Amino acid sequence: MQEAEKAQKKVTVERPIITLITDFGEGYYVAAMKGVILDICRSACLVDITHDIRSHDVLEGAFTLLCTYPYFPPKSVHIAVVDPGVGSERRGIIVATQDHYFVGPDNGVFSFVYNRESVKRVISIESQTYLRGTVSPTFHGRDAFSPVAAWLALGTPLEKFGEEIEDYSGATVLPVQKMENDRLEGMVIHVDKFGNIITSISPETAAEQFGHSGSPKFFVKGQEITHSYSYYAEAAPGEIFALIGSSGYYEIAAHKSRAADILGVERGEKVQLELHTEAPATSTT
Amino acid sequence: MQEAEKAQKKVTVERPIITLITDFGEGYYVAAMKGVILDICRSACLVDITHDIRSHDVLEGAFTLLCTYPYFPPKSVHIAVVDPGVGSERRGIIVATQDHYFVGPDNGVFSFVYNRESVKRVISIESQTYLRGTVSPTFHGRDAFSPVAAWLALGTPLEKFGEEIEDYSGATVLPVQKMENDRLEGMVIHVDKFGNIITSISPETAAEQFGHSGSPKFFVKGQEITHSYSYYAEAAPGEIFALIGSSGYYEIAAHKSRAADILGVERGEKVQLELHTEAPATSTT
Amino acid sequence: MQEAEKAQKKVTVERPIITLITDFGEGYYVAAMKGVILDICRSACLVDITHDIRSHDVLEGAFTLLCTYPYFPPKSVHIAVVDPGVGSERRGIIVATQDHYFVGPDNGVFSFVYNRESVKRVISIESQTYLRGTVSPTFHGRDAFSPVAAWLALGTPLEKFGEEIEDYSGATVLPVQKMENDRLEGMVIHVDKFGNIITSISPETAAEQFGHSGSPKFFVKGQEITHSYSYYAEAAPGEIFALIGSSGYYEIAAHKSRAADILGVERGEKVQLELHTEAPATSTT
Repeated sequence: MQEAEKAQKKVTVERPIITLITDFGEGYYVAAMKGVILDICRSACLVDITHDIRSHDVLEGAFTLLCTYPYFPPKSVHIAVVDPGVGSERRGIIVATQDHYFVGPDNGVFSFVYNRESVKRVISIESQTYLRGTVSPTFHGRDAFSPVAAWLALGTPLEKFGEEIEDYSGATVLPVQKMENDRLEGMVIHVDKFGNIITSISPETAAEQFGHSGSPKFFVKGQEITHSYSYYAEAAPGEIFALIGSSGYYEIAAHKSRAADILGVERGEKVQLELHTEAPATSTT
Repeated sequence: MQEAEKAQKKVTVERPIITLITDFGEGYYVAAMKGVILDICRSACLVDITHDIRSHDVLEGAFTLLCTYPYFPPKSVHIAVVDPGVGSERRGIIVATQDHYFVGPDNGVFSFVYNRESVKRVISIESQTYLRGTVSPTFHGRDAFSPVAAWLALGTPLEKFGEEIEDYSGATVLPVQKMENDRLEGMVIHVDKFGNIITSISPETAAEQFGHSGSPKFFVKGQEITHSYSYYAEAAPGEIFALIGSSGYYEIAAHKSRAADILGVERGEKVQLELHTEAPATSTT
Repeated sequence: MQEAEKAQKKVTVERPIITLITDFGEGYYVAAMKGVILDICRSACLVDITHDIRSHDVLEGAFTLLCTYPYFPPKSVHIAVVDPGVGSERRGIIVATQDHYFVGPDNGVFSFVYNRESVKRVISIESQTYLRGTVSPTFHGRDAFSPVAAWLALGTPLEKFGEEIEDYSGATVLPVQKMENDRLEGMVIHVDKFGNIITSISPETAAEQFGHSGSPKFFVKGQEITHSYSYYAEAAPGEIFALIGSSGYYEIAAHKSRAADILGVERGEKVQLELHTEAPATSTT
């Protein structure tokens, strides 16, 4: 208790950070969540990660969380609500790791967190004390996850919210598998505003699977991408190439052009990878 | 919860909350408003409700305000600028209710507030003291409403801004009327990012108009929606049904699908409602 | 106003303002930047100007900055990242003017600032001390500009970041030139959400070039816009006219309609202007 109080004091001074990822889009759903949070924790620093996750796309929510939470200060509280099962039996949970708290549905949205972090405790949100008086069966983001995040930011001890559980949705890694043709197959996990194609394959995973590192050669929609660079402006305008993106995963990009449009690729598309220990060929076939 | 409550009090410093609803879209208009506010009231906590109100759609602005302001702490200041008449004779006003302040044009954008709250005072903004030195005839959001909201948040007494008025645009309720066919007719007031269709009819209004409560049966664009559930995941994927949405109004939704697209419905479409005291039929005709 | 001013001082605590302009769009890039900033400068007040600059459109970024930074309080730090050359030899810089700091690539994104402000110092960001441990060659926004802005906001002296330079990308004014037909030619610098067409010509520039002030007559895509008003609601619905917009530049607008759609005009289109000392004709040809 004493510790918690100390933590609380410390956090109080330091202006608790609460981040939000949802698939709610622009509009009054997110604003209502913020009102609820500020009504409980007036000093909260609210940071929108994004509200443009594709509707019900838990995997995209999980990936977006993976690309952002590590940059935030210790003790930040991250709300992630991509929640097609809202109102049903799926549980609401708090995940506590060494440095962060996560609040949201137990539907896999935290599965990459489990894989990267050492999980200290997962709590099933049960106590009505920290929920809004009436909980809408369609909007736990506002009536459950927001108040819980706010009370957590204020230093409320984890055990007050409910029982510790062990049977939460497990850790997952991004989908990558070795194929019969000896290539590594992953998927397009995100297409950003520039039309850059972010894949689910990291150089580390590739090196591990192939047993060596090397230059990437990608295959996507019948096309081969043989060149790779370390930044966009190295390529000729319009040239398609691979690079290690800022999120730490392989990207397929085109300098000052939209690779996704040129290749006709959308989120979900399969990509295959070879790693070549010699320098890659200079001409694209 | 006592401890948490204490902590809360401690953290609750004077940090005025100012929310913003506009139809300005993404970009430099809203940013300029925020600069003006922060230049006057550096400690303000700025919360964007939305800036994606349809251009000039005062009703949508009013509805969005209705769905959000009640969640914010007492003494929050809510700016709502959907203002096709900017520069003309329409007045700028401050509305003070028991718990909130509202700042914007006197064009109906606060009409649902008047209906729900007990209005303490409405002030016509007249004093030049609290406006920017030069007021652009096309951007009162930046040059009038923002500085007024900031000074208000700092505790400037209402009477300093101008005269109290009585003849402001009156209270309104959302459009709902009893038809000859004994149905209740309302309209689609909003389509959210999921394609959920939010209607202007609340269960309370329906019960009052019909003299009894019951299961909703909706008619929209020649189609009948006979099922109703309490949350989305209760329905089969793609099934269209009614439910009471988180805003307190009836919604027409489709689990994991876009009801608005399936039904071909946009904001403004008429909807009709019957309330059935027996359980609704099990098959959709 | 004395009282209000006193109140203001009381609330004004140390709370550095950091604004962000990028072409990153919605999503995790901007959120990662915010995490990095808050990890260094926990008390920062982060204000999104916009993240919807057209990809790689340095001019649009520069114009957006011009329309917003003057409204922010002294000592604000403005990050502008529209950076097609990221990773290449282009430098990262800090620009210090009398009242503001600017952080971003040395690629022209600050060229309108140089024109309007008296520049005190421009520093080339060289010290590794204030960058993230590993700097991604594709995301200086996160790994260089964000931490530098945060350290700057904390009061780190300019000279710590690197050497003062003189050969930074020079000052520019918005493109306007006198034509052989004695008209002034400018360009459409922005189309806002309402379809208003913001031109690169200000009344001041026009008066200077013509040697007199007067009523504007615009020529765009073979059409003449002969009327001008001071605010939108002065015009008949749908009527196309010119006015001096809130950014201080001439706009072509249509009351409650989208002038850009009616005229078929996009950003980049050429516009020509005549200034008539007599009142403009009453009928549109």
